[in-house]
Amino acid sequence: MATPTPAYRVSLRIDLPATTAGASEIVATAAGTGALVTGLDVAASDGGSLVVDLTCDTRDSEHRTELVRVLEALPDVHVRTVGDATFLAHVGGKLEIHAKMPLRNRSELARIYTPGVARVCKAIYDTPAKARQLTIKKNTVAVVTDGTAVLGMGDIGPLAAMPVMEGKAVLFKEFGNVDAWPVVLDTTDTEEIIRIVKAIAPGYAGINLEDISAPRCFEIEARLREELDIPVFHDDQHGTAVVVLAALINALKVVGKRIEDVRIVVSGVGAAGHAIIRLLMAQGARDIVGYGRTGALHAGDVAGMNSHRKWLAENTNPRQVTGTLQEGIVDADVFIGVSAGNILTEADIERMADDAIVFALANPTPEVDPSAAAERAAIVATGRSDYPNQINNVLAFPGIFRGLLDAAVSEISDELLRVAAIAIAECLEDDELSPAYIIPGVFDHRVGRRVSRAVYQAAHEARDGATGTD
Amino acid sequence: MATPTPAYRVSLRIDLPATTAGASEIVATAAGTGALVTGLDVAASDGGSLVVDLTCDTRDSEHRTELVRVLEALPDVHVRTVGDATFLAHVGGKLEIHAKMPLRNRSELARIYTPGVARVCKAIYDTPAKARQLTIKKNTVAVVTDGTAVLGMGDIGPLAAMPVMEGKAVLFKEFGNVDAWPVVLDTTDTEEIIRIVKAIAPGYAGINLEDISAPRCFEIEARLREELDIPVFHDDQHGTAVVVLAALINALKVVGKRIEDVRIVVSGVGAAGHAIIRLLMAQGARDIVGYGRTGALHAGDVAGMNSHRKWLAENTNPRQVTGTLQEGIVDADVFIGVSAGNILTEADIERMADDAIVFALANPTPEVDPSAAAERAAIVATGRSDYPNQINNVLAFPGIFRGLLDAAVSEISDELLRVAAIAIAECLEDDELSPAYIIPGVFDHRVGRRVSRAVYQAAHEARDGATGTD
Repeated sequence: MATPTPAYRVSLRIDLPATTAGASEIVATAAGTGALVTGLDVAASDGGSLVVDLTCDTRDSEHRTELVRVLEALPDVHVRTVGDATFLAHVGGKLEIHAKMPLRNRSELARIYTPGVARVCKAIYDTPAKARQLTIKKNTVAVVTDGTAVLGMGDIGPLAAMPVMEGKAVLFKEFGNVDAWPVVLDTTDTEEIIRIVKAIAPGYAGINLEDISAPRCFEIEARLREELDIPVFHDDQHGTAVVVLAALINALKVVGKRIEDVRIVVSGVGAAGHAIIRLLMAQGARDIVGYGRTGALHAGDVAGMNSHRKWLAENTNPRQVTGTLQEGIVDADVFIGVSAGNILTEADIERMADDAIVFALANPTPEVDPSAAAERAAIVATGRSDYPNQINNVLAFPGIFRGLLDAAVSEISDELLRVAAIAIAECLEDDELSPAYIIPGVFDHRVGRRVSRAVYQAAHEARDGATGTD
Repeated sequence: MATPTPAYRVSLRIDLPATTAGASEIVATAAGTGALVTGLDVAASDGGSLVVDLTCDTRDSEHRTELVRVLEALPDVHVRTVGDATFLAHVGGKLEIHAKMPLRNRSELARIYTPGVARVCKAIYDTPAKARQLTIKKNTVAVVTDGTAVLGMGDIGPLAAMPVMEGKAVLFKEFGNVDAWPVVLDTTDTEEIIRIVKAIAPGYAGINLEDISAPRCFEIEARLREELDIPVFHDDQHGTAVVVLAALINALKVVGKRIEDVRIVVSGVGAAGHAIIRLLMAQGARDIVGYGRTGALHAGDVAGMNSHRKWLAENTNPRQVTGTLQEGIVDADVFIGVSAGNILTEADIERMADDAIVFALANPTPEVDPSAAAERAAIVATGRSDYPNQINNVLAFPGIFRGLLDAAVSEISDELLRVAAIAIAECLEDDELSPAYIIPGVFDHRVGRRVSRAVYQAAHEARDGATGTD
């Protein structure tokens, strides 16, 4: 059974008789349903009766309904209102725009708006590069989506995608001090999305593509990278790949294997799988087999494949393995799943090589039950926050963009992503590593700083190398 | 000669001998060039010499250069650095994005991002109207430009337009508590701009078109109004028209004339002129003649006109006046200029009717010298901050959008603009009115509140009327 979660935290306002027993009974009754009580505050009292606010985490909305029902069944108890903390946290949205300077008088107005602002416009018109000094461009990233592949929900459209994009912007600010702005697009046409992003690009120093379904996301990203002079990052691909590589580097240290030697199986060859495979190869991995819904990708059967899948078929799978994932996982050292829930069993994991590493990243239901997998594998990681070793993109994108913006570079190479992954991995000292601690926690604020520094340095070196200086 | 302005405020860091006479000489020398000294602060002292920061307003960059030259000519005086307060105020841009809630731990993350955010997305997917409660949409306006008609500078492009759009966003926040975001577009194609604004619209509750050149701005505005379900406002048209009407209402009170009776001449029939004429007619004006570069618009000569100009020719000018502006202004009660600098002389103003009203709004150089016009007219207003009666759009757009967003309506009718103008006019009591005070100052914070309240109420009434309730 699921455990209570802050995602389903509720606040109930309850009338009850003013006795100690009354309040205790409320808490005991709530706990009896499995709710995790986190607070009981008296809101009002008139001597004979009390009004209290009971805050607790529940499992889901059924649990919440059950909780209200059992409390209402107590004598003289009445639940006045049921507040949902998650929805309350979203009222009015999660972002606001602040002016950086006061605007109190005519002098200040004359500097930041007319007539003074015209001089600043003129300076940028004469020297466009000055926009990075004199406007918000330098620190601002567009979080662009068409809402077609949002979390586990799929194509929910631009409007319903807003809360995720706002949340992403909050993470950008908190972990990278990057000003990110949601750009949700009411079109799914590849060419139109490309045209729109190019048109709005002057106001931004970077583009973060988000939750755009494959294979359109590949084309959009590739074209924008080619046609824009600012960095274009697709978090579902590159962010995920960076954090997976970081976790794998440390996991391999724990089990004492080398990336060059291990057999790696990747389930899911969409946006994330493709990027993960490329980045693991950049780090030295040699034996990777990717599995789609129809089995192993191999060079012998590329008919009808899109160019990205074809590239994988022709550049991975050196042993030319064919067949199903269940067959391919036998003797594999590493399983990485970015596909669908419950496609493997404990028995499948048992057939992997000794000291197996399992990253079951499908959300919310992993490819294999993590607790069961942990019985057979040496190391298990998931995308979930309620198991050890969470693979969370927030470890990557804020620091990567911070570094890119500071370095003012436009190209995001595999080398740069590799450097970011190593920086995340190295946040944990060798003697801290263990099967349950291969990756820093999301609130480890060292991560963003280290990643940004590493990216900044790598970007600078790449540029200096390219221009032949120093 | 121009007067010193805070738009050209400079801060000079100066080495000089540590004597009282030395510092006094600096100030006297600066004042001798016509600079307005606003501060002299000692930054460092080593006994024998001083380092001071001299802050003063200058006329322009030539004046600044002259100032440095004469100070350097003083014995033992050296100007170390010259800081420009306007440019300094723009470093890093003028806006930043803040998260509305803290993000300190796993519980908070679970509510504002995964997994809790998925429930909020789902709620919006099921009931799209909830986006106005649960995202930033409700309070957010896009400030959209293609950079083709920016202030007096014309087509400077999207990048160089950024400082103006950011400044606009600062004003939106300060005077209307509206979150406004700059959307600068690297295209001037009418259809493409329409498509882009439609595509990005889900994230916004309003569109403020800004500095888009005529006649494209008419088509863009009309189509977006038709095709979007959020309000579309073109500040250069509607904002200007509202403030002009507000000023005219009060000016007519001061001279004791009725809008129905006066002869009005409008110079400039582009975006602003067109909207001004329409709104004055909505308020009851009957005798308006519009002048373009080729003279009076009249129904007898509409060949080759765009539809907006044609509408004016056919619906204004009841006396079918032809000829030049100089001819047409004879005996006019009101002159409104939104055209070009120095096209009229004091003699032209003298030929107007008694108690003439002159709004010479071309920027930075008005249609007629305001001081000269004041010799002949009863009331003179300009777009400049250094003369009485500044016609400034900031009196209109923040309050109008505040009211529109609060009422959650999409249509901006002439009636609603008229109501906004009356609200601005009525901020001044009758006994406060004078030829030099027909319009509130931009820092009069009553204005935004009154305008928003009036717009909110009018929007509600229009909606209730339309749906037949109440």
